[in-house]
Amino acid sequence: MFNVKREVSMAFERIKPFVRETMLDYSLPLSNLLGCQAFLKCENLQYTGSFKVRGAFNKLLALTSSERLQEVTTASTGNHGAAVAFGLNKLKIPGLVFVPENASKTKVDNILNYHIPLKHYGNDCMITELYAREYAVKNHMIYISPYNDLEVIGGQGTIAIELMKQLNNIDAIFVPIGGGGLISGIAGYLKETAPHIKIIGCLPENSPVMAESIHAGRILDIETKETLSDATAGGMEPGSITFEICQKYVDDYILVSENEIKQAIIAMIKNQHLLIEGAAGVALAALFKSASQFQNKNVVVILSGANISLENLSSVLDYYENN
Amino acid sequence: MFNVKREVSMAFERIKPFVRETMLDYSLPLSNLLGCQAFLKCENLQYTGSFKVRGAFNKLLALTSSERLQEVTTASTGNHGAAVAFGLNKLKIPGLVFVPENASKTKVDNILNYHIPLKHYGNDCMITELYAREYAVKNHMIYISPYNDLEVIGGQGTIAIELMKQLNNIDAIFVPIGGGGLISGIAGYLKETAPHIKIIGCLPENSPVMAESIHAGRILDIETKETLSDATAGGMEPGSITFEICQKYVDDYILVSENEIKQAIIAMIKNQHLLIEGAAGVALAALFKSASQFQNKNVVVILSGANISLENLSSVLDYYENN
Repeated sequence: MFNVKREVSMAFERIKPFVRETMLDYSLPLSNLLGCQAFLKCENLQYTGSFKVRGAFNKLLALTSSERLQEVTTASTGNHGAAVAFGLNKLKIPGLVFVPENASKTKVDNILNYHIPLKHYGNDCMITELYAREYAVKNHMIYISPYNDLEVIGGQGTIAIELMKQLNNIDAIFVPIGGGGLISGIAGYLKETAPHIKIIGCLPENSPVMAESIHAGRILDIETKETLSDATAGGMEPGSITFEICQKYVDDYILVSENEIKQAIIAMIKNQHLLIEGAAGVALAALFKSASQFQNKNVVVILSGANISLENLSSVLDYYENN
Repeated sequence: MFNVKREVSMAFERIKPFVRETMLDYSLPLSNLLGCQAFLKCENLQYTGSFKVRGAFNKLLALTSSERLQEVTTASTGNHGAAVAFGLNKLKIPGLVFVPENASKTKVDNILNYHIPLKHYGNDCMITELYAREYAVKNHMIYISPYNDLEVIGGQGTIAIELMKQLNNIDAIFVPIGGGGLISGIAGYLKETAPHIKIIGCLPENSPVMAESIHAGRILDIETKETLSDATAGGMEPGSITFEICQKYVDDYILVSENEIKQAIIAMIKNQHLLIEGAAGVALAALFKSASQFQNKNVVVILSGANISLENLSSVLDYYENN
């Protein structure tokens, strides 16, 4: 089994100069509303607007000097791509980012800002990933997986070290799951450090790949539907190490509907004046759904990112006006 | 003349344990777009979602022990009210907040969260202010002005001390103006410390009271129109000390239209994934309008607050979709 805790600890020292220690914001309105003490880990305020810079920097900083002579590539629905682009730009490493054809314009612009070349391929992030991996092999490039990589997972897990410092007595943490890199890092560290903390994986009903796979005992190749949570949409790579890590460490899974995601994004704008993307809305919606089980408990929601497109934000507000 | 610099320095030490040192966020997309180095002072991420907690805490912490035996009251379009409510709740001082009848529901809820009593009066913040002052005199209460108070101004000015620490070589600062408390604090400190920094007051065309008053050489009682920048809307109290401070220290005034405010809010969501309220949009819109004068310069925009109502946000997104 992979030593996630060790990797997270190493990552924490490595990436410290390059990432923000994001605030853990106590939400009085949400706490009043839900009957628990609700804390928001604001990775929506991280550089590039998502937690993904943590994993990207850890991977890039861990490259050996001979690896640094090769070019780097990756594939992403956007946040990981932007994070790698940000890292390549900061560390002056040459590279290339693949994105699916349907990646939102906001996220693509987010990558282009860092002056890193970008290529479109495929309509599902798994297809884009597989193609980018092949491309990397053919062209002798280093491929950085968005989640299926111990160093990427280690980087994402540094959130757990910050949380332990920011709040005593955490009872539960709500974490969005796509490929599972974020939750693998957080759970892999915390379950070896403070195993009483409940780690709850949060997924959109429209793309519940990890939850269904865990249920089945193997990685499933499921058709996924479109979701507001574009950062967690799509399949999981065959053989992904995140599957095994989630099997071992994650306590529970909660699925949420598209309307529940919208309600969570609205609640965040209304009560907390924060803009969050769909994936962060998934985690908050899962807390809303299960708050009765956490009365008077200290719960943390990982607001994984802020990169919602104006089109998606409009559709959320239309929903608000009509309901 | 009032010693603003001295008051800001004292306020900084006083309020330090109670307010956030908000981040100064370098915006790569805005810098690329505008040709200057654009930095955002994120008071939208301050407690209660606006800079107003700085002034409120300074005032409350400066109360003498005999004053602390009286109740406290204030009047506000919302942000100052929420800030005072937050402060009263934290410091366990009894009090009461007046808001105009037309204050947005988001802002009213923001106050109610702190379990402080609230009263509605009048339809313009100046009318509400005058009434609350009278009420305070009649009932032997301490009245906290949203801007016409040296200690409130001193608190707001602590932003300047943070800026001096966060960035070398600031060339210009864009500050929204309503009653003028924020800009009086910032300009009053900086012009006595680093007088080469240009301080630019930013106002909505629909409520340009301070700019017009400065132009006229006296405080004018102007009819104001509705504006997205509700936090800077309305008149200025007769005799307000902010008038004299602005006369002495503010370099320039820029007025922006309602559509320019909308464009600024959209730019912030799209490029920076941050939610800002109209008043912060006014400051950003003023930079957009004058960027050609600041090529390659280090400019700071004070994002004064995040408390935009869902209704106003919807109207901004409708504008985006139709233009």
